[in-house]
Amino acid sequence: MSHFQLHPRLQQDTVFIGSFELSQLLLMNDSLYPWFILVPQKADIGESYQLAPDERQQLQTESCLLAERLAKIYKADKMNVAALGNMVPQLHIHHVVRYKHDKAWPAPIWGAFDAVPYTEEAIEQQRQRICAAFPELTL
Amino acid sequence: MSHFQLHPRLQQDTVFIGSFELSQLLLMNDSLYPWFILVPQKADIGESYQLAPDERQQLQTESCLLAERLAKIYKADKMNVAALGNMVPQLHIHHVVRYKHDKAWPAPIWGAFDAVPYTEEAIEQQRQRICAAFPELTL
Repeated sequence: MSHFQLHPRLQQDTVFIGSFELSQLLLMNDSLYPWFILVPQKADIGESYQLAPDERQQLQTESCLLAERLAKIYKADKMNVAALGNMVPQLHIHHVVRYKHDKAWPAPIWGAFDAVPYTEEAIEQQRQRICAAFPELTL
Repeated sequence: MSHFQLHPRLQQDTVFIGSFELSQLLLMNDSLYPWFILVPQKADIGESYQLAPDERQQLQTESCLLAERLAKIYKADKMNVAALGNMVPQLHIHHVVRYKHDKAWPAPIWGAFDAVPYTEEAIEQQRQRICAAFPELTL
């Protein structure tokens, strides 16, 4: 088994925010939706069931913590939580804040529209908002 | 809190296969992909994090069991596991067997194509295949 390295496509499309005990928290660089990704820092894992039982449980704990608090701070109408991985085989769990007035609603967001990158300033604002909301993060 | 009842839209679009300890297992009536749905039998739940901690863990156990065994028996290239719920607010977790040669690959399946319903005979074949693979199910 090799060492964990973030997939190049995730490196390119996201901004690193911090790490929970198991997973990196990434902000997708798409201002259309508050869109975050959890990536368990384990090499050669493509599906949740490939994690050890205690890692699965930790991932679920982090996913529920993330979804619940994002829903609250962004006043979500719905959270979309998904492990797809058809393009990027490294296990990564999307957590997307959805609004009934967002551009893709009620369709899923993947492939719906081209990403609209944040400005540097807007990334910094998101980062501060998330860091304040998740003191559990190691930055 | 009211009594659990399957959402009418899920009743309409799926076939009931059986129940795990927490969740109903449904077959989506769309022959384009082997597509299954877990619905925790708890009323008034729209997000995983609204479940009690032991129920969250049971849902994850059932989800991993389902995904792992589906991947094996259907020889999946990838599993797509997702809780969306933009159309149907009742918590339900999609588990979709994906192939690099399926009609929507690599895009997500939701909204990609109109469903192609199974014949009665094909539903029965799927049911038997799943029941044989999941002796844990209560039918």
